[in-house]
Amino acid sequence: MEYTKPLAKLIEYFQKLPSIGPKTAQRLALHVLKMPENEVNNFANVLIEAKTTISYCDICFNMSSTNPCEICSNPSRNKSIICVVAETKDLIAIEKTNEYNGLYHVLQGLISPIDGIGPDDIRIKELLFRVTQDTISEIILALNPSVEGEATSLYLTKLLKPFNIKISRIAFGLPMGSELEYADEMTLLKALEGRIEL
Amino acid sequence: MEYTKPLAKLIEYFQKLPSIGPKTAQRLALHVLKMPENEVNNFANVLIEAKTTISYCDICFNMSSTNPCEICSNPSRNKSIICVVAETKDLIAIEKTNEYNGLYHVLQGLISPIDGIGPDDIRIKELLFRVTQDTISEIILALNPSVEGEATSLYLTKLLKPFNIKISRIAFGLPMGSELEYADEMTLLKALEGRIEL
Repeated sequence: MEYTKPLAKLIEYFQKLPSIGPKTAQRLALHVLKMPENEVNNFANVLIEAKTTISYCDICFNMSSTNPCEICSNPSRNKSIICVVAETKDLIAIEKTNEYNGLYHVLQGLISPIDGIGPDDIRIKELLFRVTQDTISEIILALNPSVEGEATSLYLTKLLKPFNIKISRIAFGLPMGSELEYADEMTLLKALEGRIEL
Repeated sequence: MEYTKPLAKLIEYFQKLPSIGPKTAQRLALHVLKMPENEVNNFANVLIEAKTTISYCDICFNMSSTNPCEICSNPSRNKSIICVVAETKDLIAIEKTNEYNGLYHVLQGLISPIDGIGPDDIRIKELLFRVTQDTISEIILALNPSVEGEATSLYLTKLLKPFNIKISRIAFGLPMGSELEYADEMTLLKALEGRIEL
């Protein structure tokens, strides 16, 4: 079975995207062919526009079309708290809670010796620079509960302790709506360790 | 939570695609921002190229960048058999079996009174035209086993009977690798009805 050539190329490009397999890529490509021509042109332009206008904020390394980013330049944000995350997607997830009003620092990765990623390969020195320059009262570590996340949290805690700043870590435990019966051992262990006196 | 504007637009466009929800759209958009710039440009160009160069074959209404399409213009295809399908994606599915060597006719829809789609809204008269013009020995109906598919098959059978051509329908029954125990009643009924003498 051979697709007509431009269709084959389109399917190939969709398939390069994460979580898009051959079947989904084919469905998306066929859908594009049924879209009005101006919609397809707009889609193509939006792709190029996003890629060319969005880069990293010089302060927190969030992805943004402005520099400093919308969060760093927002005067109503509490500039004395920094929430440290691994990737922009984690920042987005926290922003969606509509609860956090401080700043961020996107590490752009986690320490992972297996993958050859050391402390110098992620934005740790830039975080240190912010801590020395600005008046920071608290740093919240919001890294994934994985080996790499824990290693990075540990490293950052050691590094930041001398600055006499409050350092906290988001809670690990049972997710809301889950059932204790089905929780894995590690989660239950973390939930017990992190128990709060009522 | 507000995305930086070009990112918001990109997410919006990804979300217009079928089976792409807000979470996947965000993941795809963030992935695009991490792709090399020339890759993004190529993706945009491929989108436009596919849309502008692919249209419908004048004979069978398959999507193609050539007219007649690759299948209709292929001399090694058996031109006396037409397999009738609803959409290009069904044609692709049959082509992938590498077994069928005849031609196709893409109806571009199915009769569906509920949705206001009657026989004149799909490519039925064009199929009739082919039957009167060319020497056709068999028409295979390969439409979905749904209400609309069955209605369309019935309509086509009545319409084509007078031409004294062999008309067949693909078999409905248990899918390979499935278990009889878990098959729904309709499938079992169709499997019983369509039983073959050994």
